[in-house]
Amino acid sequence: GPEGTFTQAAAQKHFGHGVKTAPMGTIDEVFREVESGSTHYGVVPVENSTGGMVNTTLDSFIHSNLTICGEVELRIHHHLMVGQNTKENAITRIYSHPQSFAQCRQWLDAHYPKADRIPVSSNSDAAKRMQSEWNAAAIAGEVAAELYGLKVVASNIEDNPHNTTRFLIVGREHVPSSGQDKTSIIVSMKNKPGALYELLAPFHNADIMLTRVETRPSQDGTWAYMFFIDFEGHESDAKVKAVLAEVEALAVYVKKLGSYPKAVL
Amino acid sequence: GPEGTFTQAAAQKHFGHGVKTAPMGTIDEVFREVESGSTHYGVVPVENSTGGMVNTTLDSFIHSNLTICGEVELRIHHHLMVGQNTKENAITRIYSHPQSFAQCRQWLDAHYPKADRIPVSSNSDAAKRMQSEWNAAAIAGEVAAELYGLKVVASNIEDNPHNTTRFLIVGREHVPSSGQDKTSIIVSMKNKPGALYELLAPFHNADIMLTRVETRPSQDGTWAYMFFIDFEGHESDAKVKAVLAEVEALAVYVKKLGSYPKAVL
Repeated sequence: GPEGTFTQAAAQKHFGHGVKTAPMGTIDEVFREVESGSTHYGVVPVENSTGGMVNTTLDSFIHSNLTICGEVELRIHHHLMVGQNTKENAITRIYSHPQSFAQCRQWLDAHYPKADRIPVSSNSDAAKRMQSEWNAAAIAGEVAAELYGLKVVASNIEDNPHNTTRFLIVGREHVPSSGQDKTSIIVSMKNKPGALYELLAPFHNADIMLTRVETRPSQDGTWAYMFFIDFEGHESDAKVKAVLAEVEALAVYVKKLGSYPKAVL
Repeated sequence: GPEGTFTQAAAQKHFGHGVKTAPMGTIDEVFREVESGSTHYGVVPVENSTGGMVNTTLDSFIHSNLTICGEVELRIHHHLMVGQNTKENAITRIYSHPQSFAQCRQWLDAHYPKADRIPVSSNSDAAKRMQSEWNAAAIAGEVAAELYGLKVVASNIEDNPHNTTRFLIVGREHVPSSGQDKTSIIVSMKNKPGALYELLAPFHNADIMLTRVETRPSQDGTWAYMFFIDFEGHESDAKVKAVLAEVEALAVYVKKLGSYPKAVL
C-alpha cells in the first residue's frame, strides 16, 4: 500500500526507520518486485487476529520462488477520521479497506448503522480521499491521519482489543538459525480419509509445536486442498529435517517456504 | 444480495423456481432475518473453490443459534458485461464483488491490466451500474446481464474452469437423516502442541471422512483458534454420536451446527 499504511509501519518495525520503502498497489506487485530483483525484501500481511488469513498472500507463495525471511507482529488500532471541515453528524459514507471494515464491524453497526461502507484498496487511500470529501469519514491508522491532516473523531474502534496483524518478510535468501525460529511449508495430500491426521502424526511424534494449519483449495481441481503449515524450529535442526523427510514420503507435494526468527510483539 | 446474484440462483436450485426470495444486503442480515423468524430459511455462500472460505459466514455461526439445514453447490461462470452503448476498447473501470475479482484475477491481468478494479457489495450491483456508466464494465453472472439488458463482451472469464461455490441453507430446524449426510461442528481447543492432532484422532479411529477443517482466530484472545469441521455422517448415527462424545471430552467447547444431506453438483 501507499505511505501511511500498516504494512509500511511493519517494514519500519522490522528494518528500522532508516529503511527505504517503496509502496506497491497490491500484494502481487510486492512479490513481482522482489522476484525481479528490483527490491531486496517485500513486506506482506498474512494474518489478522480478527479477519483471519490473507488469502492473496497464501496463494502468492504457491507460484513464487521467494522464501520467508522473517515475520513481524503489529498491534493494530483503527480510528475514524474526517477532513477538517466535516462535522461528525454529517457522515453518510465511510471508506476503508475490507479487512479494516471486518475488524470494526460491531463498532460500526452500533455507531454508524446507516452510513454506506465503501471498500477501497488501502486505508491510506481512504484517508487521502477525506481531503476532498465533505460528508464522509475514513477508517485508518494514526499515521494516515497525520499524513493527510485529518481530524480523528473516534479512536481505537477495533472490536477486538488485542487486534494484531502478522506480516511476513519475503526475499531471496535463506536465514540461518537464531535458536527461536519458525518454519513454513505448503503440503498437498491425496484427498482421502485421514489425510490431515496422517500428515500431522510426524510433528506430533517429534513433539514439534504447530503454530498454524491452514487449508486452501488447490487451483487445479474443484475441491482438492493444500495445507499451509507453520511450526516451531529451523530447517537446519536435525529433528525438523527428520520430520520433513517423513512428510515428503507421505505427501504428493511439499514446498519449503523458509525458516525465520519468531516475531516479538 | 439483490436480484440476479449467485446466492439467489443457489436458493432456486435448492428450493425450486417457485420459491419466494427476499434479497438481503449482507450475510449478517440473512442470519438476523432467519433468527427473528421473518423468513423460514436463509442462503449464504460459505466456500469457493478459488477464493476459499467466506469468513463472514463462518463467524456468523459462532454467535448464531441457527442450524444448517442443507448445502448447495453451484458451478460459477463469470462474464464481462457493458451497457448497450459502451465500446469494448473504452473500458477504463471494472466493477464487481471482491470474491469475483479474486476468481477472475489472471484473466483480468492478461486482458485489462490497466483498468481500475472497483469492489462493490454484489455482482448484481455492479451490473446495475452499467445502465448509467459509459466507460465501465461489470463482472457478473448471466442472469444479471439479462436482468439489466447488458451486452456480454467476454464469457466464462473465471480462471479455474471448475470454479464452484458452496452455499449453506440456514434455518431453525433439525433435518432427519437422508443416508447421505454431512455434519458441521465448531470446536475450540486449548492452544497446546498436538491439539489439532488429538482432536482428529477420534474421527480417524472411527473411519469418518473429514470433508473440511478450517481454522479461525477466536474472538476473545490474540492468537487462539477455533476449528470449523465438516464430516460425513448424521448426528443421529451411533458412530457419529460416539465420536462427538469423545470430542466433547477433549475440547474446551463444541457447538453442533447441524446435519444435512450432501450437495449434488
